[in-house]
Amino acid sequence: MDEALVPVAESAPRGRRAGGGREAKRAARSARSSHSVPYITRRIPYYEVLDEEGLQTIERNADTILEETGIDFRDDPEALELFRAAGADVKGERVRFPSGMARKLVQATTPREFTQFARNPARNVVIGGKNTVFAPAYGSPFVRDLDQGRRYATIEDFRNFVKLAYLAPSLHHSGGTICEPVDLPVNKRHFDMVYAHMKYSDKPFMGSVTHPERAQDTVEMAKALFGDNYIDPLTGKPRTVIINLINANSPMTFDETMLGAAKVYARNNQATIITPFILAGAMSPVTVAGTCAQTLAEALAGMAFVQLCNPGAPVVLGSFASSISMQSGAPTFGTPEPALVLYVMAALARRLGVPFRSGGGLCGSKIADAQAASESANTMLPTCLGGVNFVLHTAGWLEGGLSMGYEKFVMDVDQAGMMHTLLAGVDMSENGQAMDAIREVGPGKHFLGCAHTQANFENAFYRSPITDNNSFEQWEAEGSRDLAQRANASFKKQLAEYEAPALDEALDEAVLDYVNRRKSSFADSNV
Amino acid sequence: MDEALVPVAESAPRGRRAGGGREAKRAARSARSSHSVPYITRRIPYYEVLDEEGLQTIERNADTILEETGIDFRDDPEALELFRAAGADVKGERVRFPSGMARKLVQATTPREFTQFARNPARNVVIGGKNTVFAPAYGSPFVRDLDQGRRYATIEDFRNFVKLAYLAPSLHHSGGTICEPVDLPVNKRHFDMVYAHMKYSDKPFMGSVTHPERAQDTVEMAKALFGDNYIDPLTGKPRTVIINLINANSPMTFDETMLGAAKVYARNNQATIITPFILAGAMSPVTVAGTCAQTLAEALAGMAFVQLCNPGAPVVLGSFASSISMQSGAPTFGTPEPALVLYVMAALARRLGVPFRSGGGLCGSKIADAQAASESANTMLPTCLGGVNFVLHTAGWLEGGLSMGYEKFVMDVDQAGMMHTLLAGVDMSENGQAMDAIREVGPGKHFLGCAHTQANFENAFYRSPITDNNSFEQWEAEGSRDLAQRANASFKKQLAEYEAPALDEALDEAVLDYVNRRKSSFADSNV
Repeated sequence: MDEALVPVAESAPRGRRAGGGREAKRAARSARSSHSVPYITRRIPYYEVLDEEGLQTIERNADTILEETGIDFRDDPEALELFRAAGADVKGERVRFPSGMARKLVQATTPREFTQFARNPARNVVIGGKNTVFAPAYGSPFVRDLDQGRRYATIEDFRNFVKLAYLAPSLHHSGGTICEPVDLPVNKRHFDMVYAHMKYSDKPFMGSVTHPERAQDTVEMAKALFGDNYIDPLTGKPRTVIINLINANSPMTFDETMLGAAKVYARNNQATIITPFILAGAMSPVTVAGTCAQTLAEALAGMAFVQLCNPGAPVVLGSFASSISMQSGAPTFGTPEPALVLYVMAALARRLGVPFRSGGGLCGSKIADAQAASESANTMLPTCLGGVNFVLHTAGWLEGGLSMGYEKFVMDVDQAGMMHTLLAGVDMSENGQAMDAIREVGPGKHFLGCAHTQANFENAFYRSPITDNNSFEQWEAEGSRDLAQRANASFKKQLAEYEAPALDEALDEAVLDYVNRRKSSFADSNV
Repeated sequence: MDEALVPVAESAPRGRRAGGGREAKRAARSARSSHSVPYITRRIPYYEVLDEEGLQTIERNADTILEETGIDFRDDPEALELFRAAGADVKGERVRFPSGMARKLVQATTPREFTQFARNPARNVVIGGKNTVFAPAYGSPFVRDLDQGRRYATIEDFRNFVKLAYLAPSLHHSGGTICEPVDLPVNKRHFDMVYAHMKYSDKPFMGSVTHPERAQDTVEMAKALFGDNYIDPLTGKPRTVIINLINANSPMTFDETMLGAAKVYARNNQATIITPFILAGAMSPVTVAGTCAQTLAEALAGMAFVQLCNPGAPVVLGSFASSISMQSGAPTFGTPEPALVLYVMAALARRLGVPFRSGGGLCGSKIADAQAASESANTMLPTCLGGVNFVLHTAGWLEGGLSMGYEKFVMDVDQAGMMHTLLAGVDMSENGQAMDAIREVGPGKHFLGCAHTQANFENAFYRSPITDNNSFEQWEAEGSRDLAQRANASFKKQLAEYEAPALDEALDEAVLDYVNRRKSSFADSNV
């Protein structure tokens, strides 16, 4: 837990820091410009696409959906009983909420923001309010790189991405199921995934949600890892050290797996993200306003469930919304309609007073080409301007989430770095106004050598480590490489130079001891 | 002038419209979804990055620059005399403006918005207010495509891009010097460029600014093209049928070439765009606030000059701002700092009450790769959210403007199409709210077949003609093409199917007669 406070930038690997002279200066500059913050606190306004009347209409429609249509909670009698006891109208597995009930349950006890603790306290993140936390992509069965193309992911790939996320100064979080290690048995791979986050990174991470038992395993491993720090001595309650993705089965349905995992986490004071997963046109209406009302209704129902399980447990309003091609039925990403949904949902979450998850570097492209880049930028900018607190899928996402791209990961990390600068806004200090520079230089001269430029140039502009801004001739002489090729070289260099953050041996052993005991207590299975 | 009112969509070429059955239905769908509007009137709010206090500070700093430092107007005694007569402090070529003077001159007579007329009146554009007009990129000496790589541009390339812009439903304007036809003599190529816009498109266009005589030639050609429609019978004044790019020589300098062209256009009631061309760190301070104050000061001085030449002549506040790499000095594009400048400048133009030009699909990448796409999206989204009225460089820009890309053009046109949908905002009608759909479908079902989806699916989502959303397997079976390869096929198909818009023969002859007389009246020269 004594790891350096400052994330290690790509160009300043640990162990090389002591180097003197020109190299050291470069490393120092790089560290300063690498935006090494545990999370972002925005200093620019939100972009609001709807006015008060529009937002109220959607809130009213969500209430109508909850009251008239209702939400199915499947195969979980306890959930139905909790809702009935709280005053909902429960018929079969259908739960209908008297007007305003779900909202009231959520607002009564949900924290507006909360801290997710990391094993390195300098990496703790605050989720909610004006904060933005970037996490890698989640859930791909495949990985892709330029060398081997597309292939099933393995635990080795998983560890690689944990390492790359650890090395990325613009990622604040290690994520969860970065890719599915299909070389491990389905019923045990959660142990290796969670352990990889604990071992190869000191950033906060996500837990398993594919079975309540696996959620409990994650909690037990976290208890072992955090040791004496797991319980907050002031409250006597567990600290929130895991955040977990609980997707609704849209439209208007939650299933027992997700509900079971949510119960485990909520009752251990661990965070959940209740996310209606919607491809508009299939799981919701083909319109933005309809998709928003349904998303809000589903999220309210799920968050209310969490608060009934454990009032005050941290819970995030999630929205994953994209569209489908109305010709082929294929999901599409980076189009304007989901961006509009994102802006509206962010505003609705703020009005509700809860943390918000959405967006990321989403794309439908199979490869890290211009389509991938446009689609990702068209999602990431709304993510930042709209005000997302927890950004899953910041880096690596390809092919609608089916594939995790090594080059795409590096490119997305770079984009996330730019977002740090954007969210910092305009420096209106005297130095930022730079009137002395203009007075010094005057008409017809240039600013390159003036005192103000000299004093500010090192941190003046965001510096991309992979963008090529050289002359055409120089670029051609260096092999006419495209961005994906430069990103390919970058991820290999990073993995070659990676060094694991220090981890207390006793804690490591405690985690491994739990994992080994559990693993040997039941047979492997791929179900 | 009897051309169809609806721009011809890529997939619905003229002359094929009569085809029946499935083909006709597809063409009809395509036309409906191609956002065929002469220009965009936004229905979403502006994004504001600075508050009232910040904007006032920058306005005050601009006034201070104008008053204390001043602006050089080089080699143009008439300009100096105009400013002196208006009350400015003129010493040598340096013009200093008493506090508020430039702003007062601009606000007294500059139109808040104006119509630029096209030879097809259905293509007239309104520049200013809540309107957005997309025009192609401008000024590249090189062109690039996947087949031949990078090469010097020719008049054939120029005509190709005019044709592609004509065919693009999301471009409202034919642009100006789309690329430099270096196969033609420098002192005569403006004739062929302007004629290409007149002949191969019926969208509005831009004039020559490289010499006052060439500006006058552009005006005379426009008089011939518009014939009886050139003079507005109500006012007896020329209609505004040309818009022209007048760049400042930043910092704080205007030169005789640009001033001379501006005079010609202003005195003929043609529109000018006064644009400080700034790479921050070289032509302005390394900060956003400093760059904005300087840009505003320069633009105010230039716009005041236009209003002194002809009070009431249409003039646009332009801002072209990017950064340089502080390591290599190379210009950079698509980074966060220029986006912040854009948001601030758009707000300042609105406060001033004048039309605003900025942004586009800017990038530094040499090729149409992921770098190009990220950088372009990171410029285009701020362009639309910030509220740019005239968007030069919407399509084709590569390599910091040195190269015009055929594939990049097609990709950017697609992005501009998406911006139409974004700027249309959220449909809050009953149909947009889609509550009937949610009631009909209910929990656990899907929306694909419901009545609301059936009624709305054709126009539900933006449809990209070049994005690939198919399954991995299908994409692989079709050759694993990236976006640039698909765009390559698209531009070739478009050029093969292009048909010129009808042009009245007498008007065509009148233009050609002027061109031929002028061309034969002086010798070719490359100076």
